[in-house]
Amino acid sequence: MPRFQDRALDELRPSLIERDFTQMALGSALISVGKTKVLCTASMEDRAPAWLRGSGKGWVTAEYSLLPGSTPERSGREASKGKQSGRTLEIQRLIGRSLRSVVDMSAIPEIQLVVDCDVLQADGGTRTASIVGGFVALSDAINRLIDMNRISKRALIGQCAAVSVGIVDEIAMLDLDYSEDVRADVDMNVVMTSDGKFVEVQGTGERTTYSKSQLDDMLSLAEHGISYLMDLQNAVLSDPPKPRSK
Amino acid sequence: MPRFQDRALDELRPSLIERDFTQMALGSALISVGKTKVLCTASMEDRAPAWLRGSGKGWVTAEYSLLPGSTPERSGREASKGKQSGRTLEIQRLIGRSLRSVVDMSAIPEIQLVVDCDVLQADGGTRTASIVGGFVALSDAINRLIDMNRISKRALIGQCAAVSVGIVDEIAMLDLDYSEDVRADVDMNVVMTSDGKFVEVQGTGERTTYSKSQLDDMLSLAEHGISYLMDLQNAVLSDPPKPRSK
Amino acid sequence: MPRFQDRALDELRPSLIERDFTQMALGSALISVGKTKVLCTASMEDRAPAWLRGSGKGWVTAEYSLLPGSTPERSGREASKGKQSGRTLEIQRLIGRSLRSVVDMSAIPEIQLVVDCDVLQADGGTRTASIVGGFVALSDAINRLIDMNRISKRALIGQCAAVSVGIVDEIAMLDLDYSEDVRADVDMNVVMTSDGKFVEVQGTGERTTYSKSQLDDMLSLAEHGISYLMDLQNAVLSDPPKPRSK
Amino acid sequence: MPRFQDRALDELRPSLIERDFTQMALGSALISVGKTKVLCTASMEDRAPAWLRGSGKGWVTAEYSLLPGSTPERSGREASKGKQSGRTLEIQRLIGRSLRSVVDMSAIPEIQLVVDCDVLQADGGTRTASIVGGFVALSDAINRLIDMNRISKRALIGQCAAVSVGIVDEIAMLDLDYSEDVRADVDMNVVMTSDGKFVEVQGTGERTTYSKSQLDDMLSLAEHGISYLMDLQNAVLSDPPKPRSK
Amino acid sequence: MPRFQDRALDELRPSLIERDFTQMALGSALISVGKTKVLCTASMEDRAPAWLRGSGKGWVTAEYSLLPGSTPERSGREASKGKQSGRTLEIQRLIGRSLRSVVDMSAIPEIQLVVDCDVLQADGGTRTASIVGGFVALSDAINRLIDMNRISKRALIGQCAAVSVGIVDEIAMLDLDYSEDVRADVDMNVVMTSDGKFVEVQGTGERTTYSKSQLDDMLSLAEHGISYLMDLQNAVLSDPPKPRSK
Amino acid sequence: MPRFQDRALDELRPSLIERDFTQMALGSALISVGKTKVLCTASMEDRAPAWLRGSGKGWVTAEYSLLPGSTPERSGREASKGKQSGRTLEIQRLIGRSLRSVVDMSAIPEIQLVVDCDVLQADGGTRTASIVGGFVALSDAINRLIDMNRISKRALIGQCAAVSVGIVDEIAMLDLDYSEDVRADVDMNVVMTSDGKFVEVQGTGERTTYSKSQLDDMLSLAEHGISYLMDLQNAVLSDPPKPRSK
Repeated sequence: MPRFQDRALDELRPSLIERDFTQMALGSALISVGKTKVLCTASMEDRAPAWLRGSGKGWVTAEYSLLPGSTPERSGREASKGKQSGRTLEIQRLIGRSLRSVVDMSAIPEIQLVVDCDVLQADGGTRTASIVGGFVALSDAINRLIDMNRISKRALIGQCAAVSVGIVDEIAMLDLDYSEDVRADVDMNVVMTSDGKFVEVQGTGERTTYSKSQLDDMLSLAEHGISYLMDLQNAVLSDPPKPRSK
Repeated sequence: MPRFQDRALDELRPSLIERDFTQMALGSALISVGKTKVLCTASMEDRAPAWLRGSGKGWVTAEYSLLPGSTPERSGREASKGKQSGRTLEIQRLIGRSLRSVVDMSAIPEIQLVVDCDVLQADGGTRTASIVGGFVALSDAINRLIDMNRISKRALIGQCAAVSVGIVDEIAMLDLDYSEDVRADVDMNVVMTSDGKFVEVQGTGERTTYSKSQLDDMLSLAEHGISYLMDLQNAVLSDPPKPRSK
Repeated sequence: MPRFQDRALDELRPSLIERDFTQMALGSALISVGKTKVLCTASMEDRAPAWLRGSGKGWVTAEYSLLPGSTPERSGREASKGKQSGRTLEIQRLIGRSLRSVVDMSAIPEIQLVVDCDVLQADGGTRTASIVGGFVALSDAINRLIDMNRISKRALIGQCAAVSVGIVDEIAMLDLDYSEDVRADVDMNVVMTSDGKFVEVQGTGERTTYSKSQLDDMLSLAEHGISYLMDLQNAVLSDPPKPRSK
Repeated sequence: MPRFQDRALDELRPSLIERDFTQMALGSALISVGKTKVLCTASMEDRAPAWLRGSGKGWVTAEYSLLPGSTPERSGREASKGKQSGRTLEIQRLIGRSLRSVVDMSAIPEIQLVVDCDVLQADGGTRTASIVGGFVALSDAINRLIDMNRISKRALIGQCAAVSVGIVDEIAMLDLDYSEDVRADVDMNVVMTSDGKFVEVQGTGERTTYSKSQLDDMLSLAEHGISYLMDLQNAVLSDPPKPRSK
Repeated sequence: MPRFQDRALDELRPSLIERDFTQMALGSALISVGKTKVLCTASMEDRAPAWLRGSGKGWVTAEYSLLPGSTPERSGREASKGKQSGRTLEIQRLIGRSLRSVVDMSAIPEIQLVVDCDVLQADGGTRTASIVGGFVALSDAINRLIDMNRISKRALIGQCAAVSVGIVDEIAMLDLDYSEDVRADVDMNVVMTSDGKFVEVQGTGERTTYSKSQLDDMLSLAEHGISYLMDLQNAVLSDPPKPRSK
Repeated sequence: MPRFQDRALDELRPSLIERDFTQMALGSALISVGKTKVLCTASMEDRAPAWLRGSGKGWVTAEYSLLPGSTPERSGREASKGKQSGRTLEIQRLIGRSLRSVVDMSAIPEIQLVVDCDVLQADGGTRTASIVGGFVALSDAINRLIDMNRISKRALIGQCAAVSVGIVDEIAMLDLDYSEDVRADVDMNVVMTSDGKFVEVQGTGERTTYSKSQLDDMLSLAEHGISYLMDLQNAVLSDPPKPRSK
């Protein structure tokens, strides 16, 4: 069964990042990966979380949400249900950990940077797209705070990106769309930094188990895709961000 | 004090509606009014709300949310707080009532159309922009359901749009942006149909009271603005919607 | 179809305010409008809301509730459901805004006055009755605080009252009871001050739309009814409140 | 230290029951015990609770609430906090069990009677006043349902009432008001039926413990007070209830 | 109908207390009464509850939970339902009041001792077992805090224990197991101190009422059972607790 | 820095599984890994989750909780906070997925097996201990249901176990205790089946990133530890479970 639009097994869907899609938050990026679209914004809060106050350190956290109209079958609004699902909480914890891996917490003292990832359209890979776009929003926010002399220049200590890989019908493939994801035997999300190291590897065999060699195949595909996405991030970020009036 | 970019007192901010900004929901529109941007989607649920079942009627409802990064000061996410604010509930009740005024509930039997209005960027007038954009999304959803022979042709019985007006420094003006809204003595939201009738008039004197003649002035301004926005809706909707594969 | 007990179109239902129905709160009034009965109490809290602290200003807020046994069909208790409905929140926001229009916030520094409106029996018009009775409770609370030298004499800067009007079978009428309300095409709540100005106008065409001339007719009826209710408030408040031992 | 208004140790506060204080619910009573005022209403729901359906039996339950303005220091509204306190839940469980002791559940098949006890003014003894007034409301509701041929004539199988007793400064006394309750070493609530049997005995030594002879003294006082309150119930209920139009 | 394993009417089920079953909390006891098993732990929190701060006093509180797998029919997890039942809150209030009766709050200044009672297996009598085991955990926690010079030596001012009694088929009996509890006409929980005084008496006639002489019979049985359980507590606590490394 | 009690880098802590520690649920196991103790129970619910009904399939799910007294610093009770943390939800999703990998859902039609993992004492590795002990409880529950002819014999299709591995001070080691976990640069949880395949690999570099060769080292250690734990499971399960009376 060929992939949609004859995509190769190691080929990403067409991907695009629109910088500053909105302009209220300190950083903003609309990332599209195939039909998946995620609006990522990075905002600053003047207070670190309670458990960190007085430590001289700051924090980076993330929140994630599927807009109700982002899916063919409308997904219920968590705000009206009164609680976030386990899936949502698990995803936002992953995004937060990933982004923290490239920020020096002692360089953003007593503040918190919050990266909001709101999925406008969902077609698989929303959590990894959130990390890729979230990094762009976060990077711009940090650079604007540096320009405003709010934080030190060494706050951003690396670059990170993420991609999903999986095994469908016993074949490892890169960047599953939704129709592939529901048929997948194994689903894996990989987050890496620009020095080729892993931040997160989360591989789940929901329908079947997987061998060590399959794991290795998936990690190779992921490395390949992440490298491409980092080029995309770098292209978007090549100019310094425009100053925010605020 | 002149308005931003020397806007006239009876002039709307530059407004734009992007039809089918997303393509999972049955209808979708991204409306921009100045810096305010709202993504409106219309989805169908196969079941009417419980209190209506078996009546042979359907229902139209709306949900509204500010994305956390839509404001200069990040606004907390209601899903993580575990409840929607009174402001949110009040706004979504207004949007729902307004859109129901142009739909024949007996022509959409036993289904529910849900219009989600998610504010990507907030600079005043988000609830009225939601009604204007929500109408476009709803209209497309209804026409697609007609094309799919799911509902009868006479479901959409009118056109509605909305605008805010207010009194700032004793002067009535159309379409307040956020900086005007916070200085306003009186804030009024008006929803009308294309036959020049009112669906909703909500005028609040938060800082001062207002006279009958001020009320009349504001209603005239509103009528003028709504007429313009209806032209915009008609231009966007002039072609029939493209079929959804779903 | 004649009104109950042959009431005229511009006639209020028999209305009565019992001052000091309870005596724990600083002010208390039981208002009856036809069968509708609302117990309004005004209490003082020593702290202004968090967002106002240190500003030298105080605040007035309102809470509203239908007692479960107030309706022929028992209405569920919001405390046991764990959340207040959109209707409740919308109503208490309206009552709070209305009562704030007659209080000088800088004259009640760093305190909060809370007006609780608990509906003992509901037969239409509960939100407007709450405003009428709430004003009496608030006025007594403020005057008692003045007598106790807790706040300055100029805290109360006006008088407000409210009434509902509507269009039933194409006829505008004053003060709808429940049986009229469910048949109404248009329902409007109007809040005014004693100088004939509007605090709030909220007109909703749930079943149909309405023209400008119908709007004007409803506003005239409302002005007439509010004038009567202000006389009733004045009669009740003609003597100074008795001191509270507290 | 003498009691307020030189009340004897075995003397109830002045008590009054106003039947049909409201007229929407099937039964209604406003009970005053000293300054304590509780509005009790009894409503019918057409469905028994889920766990009982199909058993041929019905159920009686109670809900209790302090109105925020019922106390000198305003008590927070549980509906806005989003949960009921342990105290509230404990009290309403007690009221429910007490009232169930006098109803034959098989005589009210597949329905639920809900007794709402809303405290308009709180000065001690609100839970026992709720039982006394709740019985009157429930009795009227049951008799009206019998008149409407909804339930069988033998549904009400007894009469119950309740009173608080306590030990203050080592002295046992009947019917503690709030000022006595806060000083009490031991606080006991007793619920009895008209045949002199106990439904509930709940004695708590919050500040100190108590001996068997002190327990016996308190039970004697309680029996005396309950006998008086049953006479009051009987006087109020001596005529049959007026028919409800509903 | 004889009792399980021919137990006499005034005989407790086999009871056992394992001290220090876990070792993270300051005190820990696993109590078994027949098949009922409750793990009780006592922990210290460095801050008194808000309403007590600055008073120089401390507080003792309790929390109670049924593990979902503790009952033959799995009981839902309250954490996932999002609220604790009325039963849970009522029980933990009882345990807390009981344990506070034997602690001098001024001897544990500005701290809070929390006794957690988690039911691993439920076969009747879980609330009274929690009090018996909770006392052991609390006693060890207090003695360890004394050894660590955190609190004064006179914090523990008594010993308390509890048992259930009831009337089944008109016969009073001690320590009901679950099968007896569901058939019981009257269910009573009694908490006493070692000087033979009552802390709590809670007797409920859910299915029938009870006479004064039946009450007296139940209290005698309870006194007998509590005396035995106090011996068990004393045996377990005869040696001083081993030091905690923490 | 040597490990506690000179444990080797590839050595598990002393581990023990007590089968049938409680006897109400269909399966029960108390697992100890070092000081970590988790009580796992498996219960049956007669209905599959709503989304599965009518499919002829069943479901296996898990719930996880830390008892408040399981940690040196008392952890707050999620039931009283009213929501489960993201950590809790993430862990119980992991346990559920892992256990589902060894059950054939079509062999347990229209029922749900719930595995509750309640941590009595927490010293690192609670989620992996929950999987190891949860498998034992689940296996016994399934075998008892087979004995009761409730489900088919082929429901259990494999064996699974789990362990944590990590990198501390640049050294990979097996089965981190809490003191190691807080110092770890990388933390990884691995779930495998008895045929040497992976169910889950979750590796997180919270403090630093990790290379492919470090990943491989950790996976080797995990395979070694899991093999030992599977022997332990097999030893415990070598006899068939005793019948449950229920």
